[in-house]
Amino acid sequence: MYAPAGVRLSADLPVPAQMKAWVLGNPDELFLRDKPVPVPGRAEVLVRIDAVAICATDLEVIHGGSPASIQGGLPFNKNFTPGHEYMGTVAALGPEVDEFGIGERVSVEIHAGCGQCKRCRQGMYTSCLNYGNAAKGHRANGFTTDGGFAEYAINHINTLARVPATMGDAEATLVVTAGTSMYGLTELGGLVAGESVVVIGPGPIGLLAVAVAKALGASPVILTGTRNKRLAIGRELGADRVINIADENAVDVVKQLTGGIGADYVVECAGTEATVNQAIHMTNRGGKICLAAFPHAPVTIDLAHLVKNNIYVYGIRGEGRSATRRAMALMAEKRFDATKIHTHTFALADLPTALRYARERVDDAIKVVVTNRQAGIASAAAE
Amino acid sequence: MYAPAGVRLSADLPVPAQMKAWVLGNPDELFLRDKPVPVPGRAEVLVRIDAVAICATDLEVIHGGSPASIQGGLPFNKNFTPGHEYMGTVAALGPEVDEFGIGERVSVEIHAGCGQCKRCRQGMYTSCLNYGNAAKGHRANGFTTDGGFAEYAINHINTLARVPATMGDAEATLVVTAGTSMYGLTELGGLVAGESVVVIGPGPIGLLAVAVAKALGASPVILTGTRNKRLAIGRELGADRVINIADENAVDVVKQLTGGIGADYVVECAGTEATVNQAIHMTNRGGKICLAAFPHAPVTIDLAHLVKNNIYVYGIRGEGRSATRRAMALMAEKRFDATKIHTHTFALADLPTALRYARERVDDAIKVVVTNRQAGIASAAAE
Amino acid sequence: MYAPAGVRLSADLPVPAQMKAWVLGNPDELFLRDKPVPVPGRAEVLVRIDAVAICATDLEVIHGGSPASIQGGLPFNKNFTPGHEYMGTVAALGPEVDEFGIGERVSVEIHAGCGQCKRCRQGMYTSCLNYGNAAKGHRANGFTTDGGFAEYAINHINTLARVPATMGDAEATLVVTAGTSMYGLTELGGLVAGESVVVIGPGPIGLLAVAVAKALGASPVILTGTRNKRLAIGRELGADRVINIADENAVDVVKQLTGGIGADYVVECAGTEATVNQAIHMTNRGGKICLAAFPHAPVTIDLAHLVKNNIYVYGIRGEGRSATRRAMALMAEKRFDATKIHTHTFALADLPTALRYARERVDDAIKVVVTNRQAGIASAAAE
Amino acid sequence: MYAPAGVRLSADLPVPAQMKAWVLGNPDELFLRDKPVPVPGRAEVLVRIDAVAICATDLEVIHGGSPASIQGGLPFNKNFTPGHEYMGTVAALGPEVDEFGIGERVSVEIHAGCGQCKRCRQGMYTSCLNYGNAAKGHRANGFTTDGGFAEYAINHINTLARVPATMGDAEATLVVTAGTSMYGLTELGGLVAGESVVVIGPGPIGLLAVAVAKALGASPVILTGTRNKRLAIGRELGADRVINIADENAVDVVKQLTGGIGADYVVECAGTEATVNQAIHMTNRGGKICLAAFPHAPVTIDLAHLVKNNIYVYGIRGEGRSATRRAMALMAEKRFDATKIHTHTFALADLPTALRYARERVDDAIKVVVTNRQAGIASAAAE
Repeated sequence: MYAPAGVRLSADLPVPAQMKAWVLGNPDELFLRDKPVPVPGRAEVLVRIDAVAICATDLEVIHGGSPASIQGGLPFNKNFTPGHEYMGTVAALGPEVDEFGIGERVSVEIHAGCGQCKRCRQGMYTSCLNYGNAAKGHRANGFTTDGGFAEYAINHINTLARVPATMGDAEATLVVTAGTSMYGLTELGGLVAGESVVVIGPGPIGLLAVAVAKALGASPVILTGTRNKRLAIGRELGADRVINIADENAVDVVKQLTGGIGADYVVECAGTEATVNQAIHMTNRGGKICLAAFPHAPVTIDLAHLVKNNIYVYGIRGEGRSATRRAMALMAEKRFDATKIHTHTFALADLPTALRYARERVDDAIKVVVTNRQAGIASAAAE
Repeated sequence: MYAPAGVRLSADLPVPAQMKAWVLGNPDELFLRDKPVPVPGRAEVLVRIDAVAICATDLEVIHGGSPASIQGGLPFNKNFTPGHEYMGTVAALGPEVDEFGIGERVSVEIHAGCGQCKRCRQGMYTSCLNYGNAAKGHRANGFTTDGGFAEYAINHINTLARVPATMGDAEATLVVTAGTSMYGLTELGGLVAGESVVVIGPGPIGLLAVAVAKALGASPVILTGTRNKRLAIGRELGADRVINIADENAVDVVKQLTGGIGADYVVECAGTEATVNQAIHMTNRGGKICLAAFPHAPVTIDLAHLVKNNIYVYGIRGEGRSATRRAMALMAEKRFDATKIHTHTFALADLPTALRYARERVDDAIKVVVTNRQAGIASAAAE
Repeated sequence: MYAPAGVRLSADLPVPAQMKAWVLGNPDELFLRDKPVPVPGRAEVLVRIDAVAICATDLEVIHGGSPASIQGGLPFNKNFTPGHEYMGTVAALGPEVDEFGIGERVSVEIHAGCGQCKRCRQGMYTSCLNYGNAAKGHRANGFTTDGGFAEYAINHINTLARVPATMGDAEATLVVTAGTSMYGLTELGGLVAGESVVVIGPGPIGLLAVAVAKALGASPVILTGTRNKRLAIGRELGADRVINIADENAVDVVKQLTGGIGADYVVECAGTEATVNQAIHMTNRGGKICLAAFPHAPVTIDLAHLVKNNIYVYGIRGEGRSATRRAMALMAEKRFDATKIHTHTFALADLPTALRYARERVDDAIKVVVTNRQAGIASAAAE
Repeated sequence: MYAPAGVRLSADLPVPAQMKAWVLGNPDELFLRDKPVPVPGRAEVLVRIDAVAICATDLEVIHGGSPASIQGGLPFNKNFTPGHEYMGTVAALGPEVDEFGIGERVSVEIHAGCGQCKRCRQGMYTSCLNYGNAAKGHRANGFTTDGGFAEYAINHINTLARVPATMGDAEATLVVTAGTSMYGLTELGGLVAGESVVVIGPGPIGLLAVAVAKALGASPVILTGTRNKRLAIGRELGADRVINIADENAVDVVKQLTGGIGADYVVECAGTEATVNQAIHMTNRGGKICLAAFPHAPVTIDLAHLVKNNIYVYGIRGEGRSATRRAMALMAEKRFDATKIHTHTFALADLPTALRYARERVDDAIKVVVTNRQAGIASAAAE
């Protein structure tokens, strides 16, 4: 049985000593293994994972290793458990934790900063200067510390938000994505009511950026992309206008919709050379661009246009400034329906199939959610 | 005689009806002509120009026309008077002006926003959405409205700062350049005491960025460039370390000087593809880059590094946020000696020679100043 | 006929030379008089007033004179037209104005800064240092320049927002009030989603502060007051909890609702010594208070508590930072129903009755709106 | 010998197991006792205290107990060691600490937030919502955790700054005070070059606020007070004008020095009803006031003036936003000479005498410093 020193448990929610967890093998290999259930430290809790969504970054980690292994120069990160967009139930409390109670449903953020570097002290915990250094207290679950494709995970209390009873498990996994969209809009200034916002790229972050921008009162909200099905979902989530860039010149249309001057804010979620340059040319003088995606290879861009037009560019990583809590606040009030991007559900045991749906966009998959509750894994009860 | 309706004058400072002014002809042609002395409107004054420094942008305007003519698609901007880094003496007051008195020595900023667009209302007057539209009240002297290679010019009172008696005419022309450096540091957050700042490119803006950063307490201040003479001036202006990029790898040295993490702030004043990429790679996680110069052609850059490291990039135009007044405040207190970048002086009548010195860096010219007082033009007194 | 030089008109919307306007006499005297229709200058338009709401400040102006007259030491401000919460139709354009077209319906802000002082240049136009100085370009319609209890008024284009066809005249007058509420929340940081917000005082600004805070995702939103009818309207506008301070201890209840620590943000709209101290004691460490109302006499407050708890206090005047446009954006999207505070409607000719309803809260009046369209004044058509 | 598990030591700097420390008894009782040398945890170091300055708050703690004891309702805080303005030498490293090395000289900040509450996560660690809760990781040395009137103390690495070799021990203790002054100016916006700043009250924080404001380029810097000797020191530290409020009306003089409008920023360091009201009335429209001191009893103030003039008030606690590091950066560059406020030095064994000098301002004492190095205590070497 699981009974680590200093950790509080509840008889209502017994925790096994061992759990099932998917772990990395060689590149693109993933195995379901038994692992010891991890132990929460100070300011940490153990979360029983009830659902976890698949993100494109998961596919990269499974293919290329975690960022920590890459930065550390390791060949690969064997035995590491990926998965970062999860939600679950608090199952055990680390020493001194009274901020959460056992049995509470929680959504998560990925990053807990070390709390002791200059950036963390400024409140910029996603830019922690000890990124990947678990000994200093940094955690990025699913990236540098074990993540959510498992039955249990550890979370710093800073990374948790309560899930209201009116929100389902699958919806609660989407708070991580909405938090990234909210972070982007936060860094652009946050006060977007009545401002023109263009979102480039109708992937999950882009679609929820449309939803968040609309919820905060942005007007007009414009979405550009290449797939009409996705653009149609963008409309449902609040886009006042969608532009299929195969049919229309996005820069021209944005200028036309904004009195000839261009948009106040552009959130770039496509990450291609073409769309980054579109972002630059559709932003108005003094406007701002958030880069929430990026091309992996260097790109050729019109930097002169940025400087001549006093445009600022914000490269964002993750979901900082407690943006996830603001996203949760809007979702708890049903200001937008994030579940419109949730297309498929699988059991945790079927993770490989779920990953294939996400990777190959089988059946127009957008967000694929893996759940541990509706169709649990035998071991969970067997302990 | 000059006596426009509604304009106040002083017998102590008589103003002629006509003045000498250099004007554009065809590309690279500049003629000294007679022009009527312009008339200040509401919230404007007439400035008698006592000294004017030459900026690289002047050379571009003389070669390619003013930004207004380029944007307007005009072939060239004939009869336009360039020159924007000037100082002088208030010679006449527009209607209702009591903020300045005739005879006061003043330094200038280039941009007066229209005051009626969204950006001006936000205080972002250098990003005025009516840029180049004089009818709406926008002025960018030497760029879109007549500038300082003349005996007189019009300035909005917002663009003026008083010159203390302890500051010479030539030094006061440098306030415009220092204001741009200050604007860059302002947009990076302004609170640079104890923070690491790298300045790339020891041109006038870069050298004064070193001086301003040091005056505000930045530490260390690092300057990179290719010419040792310029780097040596950077040292005199406060650089703790200079890097000749022909001899050392700037990114490596910056990392070594900053405990391996990179610099908090980078001010890019060289505007080449190589140096922009150096800026990207020498900035630490969560750090900020100001682009105060730019390559004219598109450049290939490592955008992924920006996004993965949560780096923000600020393309700045001119000298916004009243930064010029903050620069003047530091210079008035002799916190740095901007005159170290002033290398040559000519009379206004010798402007073509002065421009040649600036363009060809004759005799290691940095800032070439043209003065109207020590060696005035005959016409000034002849009226 | 009205045909000033340089002003554009439309045959579709003929403008008379004279208009009816209410003007101040001695304290508390108000007369309906004929006045020349005013002439818009540069960046100004003539607005035909279609509806105007009554604000408590109007009652003060009618009783005590305009702030300009008070500050100027004048005995009273005779012939001045008060009224500042109006909306209408653009009827004529000043020179160079092309931002609006004749016939467009517009809501207004009160303040147009001079555009040439330090505060205006910072974007703080409601803190214009030339407040009340019309010669320098400052306007505060209904306070220092003629306002809206008339058939026509002049507005700087910066003070206008377009009214969508889906919004009625009366509702559009409420944008001014909502703009003040939005300004308060803006200065508190703006990012209130998921944050606890207490609004003290269910007057018009307080009730719309509840609505705006809720629309931006604040949670919980708590409203305190003494009249249950008003508190009930607050509930309809989004308050999660209302506190009648006659029945409950507001500080205790707020602490209880916020886990014992107090609220993140408090918007004080009651302006009494007791409620200011409640605000201080119900704000958490590091929290912020906006003072949107004020007691006229000095008050005794627990300043030590502010300092020991690192609390910041923002005294706001009017509706700065373009907050009115953000309020309009939310109202145009029907995010809240401001008309819940609109209780009574009168014709402009019945202004004295309307004022009495507002002053004496006849029939539980909250917002009393005077309209010029449903029941116009004869002279409007007679010209 | 001192050899706790997991703590790194150096043979060059041996640490005894027991130390001398002053501890609280009943109110106003202080005893020199033996205590175990404390043990640094994760992200903490042991500091050998080399010098410690006396602050007025120390006198309050000795008289009334620590804030923790007061808030906790304890009768008094026996065995607690006060003292918070110290500096020293790193003597031992907690687990995983590599940010500092043994033997490095360091200055300190008072507050280390818990790192796990909402305010800490925002970077507002001096407003930690777990203030006084050591179990959650909060430390306020000398207030809620043992402080510096002893031979050793524990510090979180976030609270340390390196002391350059060119700075003496006594000077380094003053960094804490300068950090508070810097924090105040930071919260006021930080960009004070060329702005008018009034400092009220020439105590240590006020005098160093003058020095910091001047170093950052503020102009003019005005200091008000009642003691000419103190005002004279203010002049030496950079005040352009001093006002003895016994001789002149401070509000009138400030208005006269600022063109009739009042000051941009006021730092109130006197904490009386009269001076708070002076601060209110001498601040210009849109200006800001920092309250760095406070009257203990409620005060009667002109709140209406604040609201009508859009003035913001910042009550500050301690030295947040890493302001201490910015203060150290300026002091390391010798931008001002903080030692001008250091008047007396005593040995740690003579603390009672030192406290009397500070309390009674014997011999015009300003800062009294107690040093452990020039005249150490026997026990330090005897272990």
